[in-house]
Amino acid sequence: MKVLGEKPDIKGCSRTDSFVHARQYCISLKTEHTILCERLVGALNHFLPEDIAVWSCREVPPDFHARYSCTGKEYVYQIWNHPVRDPFQQHRALHYWYQLDLNRLNEAAACYLGTHDFTSFCTLDSRERGDMTRTVTKAEVRREGDLVLFTVAADGFLYNMVRIMVGTLLRVAQGKLEPQQVAEVIEAKDRRAAGPTAPPYGLYLNRVFYEDVKT
Amino acid sequence: MKVLGEKPDIKGCSRTDSFVHARQYCISLKTEHTILCERLVGALNHFLPEDIAVWSCREVPPDFHARYSCTGKEYVYQIWNHPVRDPFQQHRALHYWYQLDLNRLNEAAACYLGTHDFTSFCTLDSRERGDMTRTVTKAEVRREGDLVLFTVAADGFLYNMVRIMVGTLLRVAQGKLEPQQVAEVIEAKDRRAAGPTAPPYGLYLNRVFYEDVKT
Repeated sequence: MKVLGEKPDIKGCSRTDSFVHARQYCISLKTEHTILCERLVGALNHFLPEDIAVWSCREVPPDFHARYSCTGKEYVYQIWNHPVRDPFQQHRALHYWYQLDLNRLNEAAACYLGTHDFTSFCTLDSRERGDMTRTVTKAEVRREGDLVLFTVAADGFLYNMVRIMVGTLLRVAQGKLEPQQVAEVIEAKDRRAAGPTAPPYGLYLNRVFYEDVKT
Repeated sequence: MKVLGEKPDIKGCSRTDSFVHARQYCISLKTEHTILCERLVGALNHFLPEDIAVWSCREVPPDFHARYSCTGKEYVYQIWNHPVRDPFQQHRALHYWYQLDLNRLNEAAACYLGTHDFTSFCTLDSRERGDMTRTVTKAEVRREGDLVLFTVAADGFLYNMVRIMVGTLLRVAQGKLEPQQVAEVIEAKDRRAAGPTAPPYGLYLNRVFYEDVKT
């Protein structure tokens, strides 16, 4: 408002819970202002707090909507997998003491791939109604040193979906669930069949996809 | 005290200002307790706050002293060198907008190498008395993507020495000082000849060296 002298109606690409991070995020807004895109970046960064930054800005067709035009998203969940915590990962990764078996976790993660009703992986609240079917196009676990990263991409996500996916993978890590049983957890369509909701601070919205818009 | 049931006299390897980070740090203490080293690590981490962690613990000769036995230290100063700030580097790197010329900075940093009186690079306060001579064994600037890292190792450091070294390098970056003039800044033995003290949050105590003790 300070920048454009008006209060534009801002649309964000997704809801993010407190303590969840975003490496990429898209908003759309309509303005009558004639400010150049490249100048808007600097002006917004000047007024925004230090923990948020605008990377780029561009003109889009009038029917573009940050949320409804979005064709998919990718999240990463970070786990610090070492017997001793890393203070530099505080609020940035979940600390998991025992050595994670990535073959086992990837076998479990593969069950998430494809089109499923993900009711088991959704915190039911007033915000979630309608179709619980989503298509997961990527679900893999990799290691970078002592960090274990779970990457998942889909055409859309239910409320807390990634965090419950991670909580369920950790059930597998603990031996409370066999990898292939994750398919049964999905099949159950019951939140109680899945693992707990992993804490928010390990979660990163990593990429947001749009048709014909390179991000 | 909670762990050992006594209040041991703890010696730290260095003073670190507020907001300065440490990737390695050494303390020494004498205890009558017979607790095993490996158990002490876990016990201390249990009681310590989340932003500090004990990595290892070992028995040393009785004359070992974390500060006086220390033969050298290495610091790294992190600069986020990009027109747009990175929220993930908040409190972790100094933000510098304009593209840094590493050849120029390395030419300047090379002046720090060797044995010099570093009076120009010391905040004078009641804590600093006596010999201001230190031997710098490493002083180099490198780039990792958009991060520019200044690494400096010496047998010891004066109060604020690295931060003033960085402030002086940034004077060189700004063209207010030519690289080879850094030698004159050292020669001046006058704090006013050097650049400003760079902010603390970009500074990391990276390594601490001891004779015959692998760290």
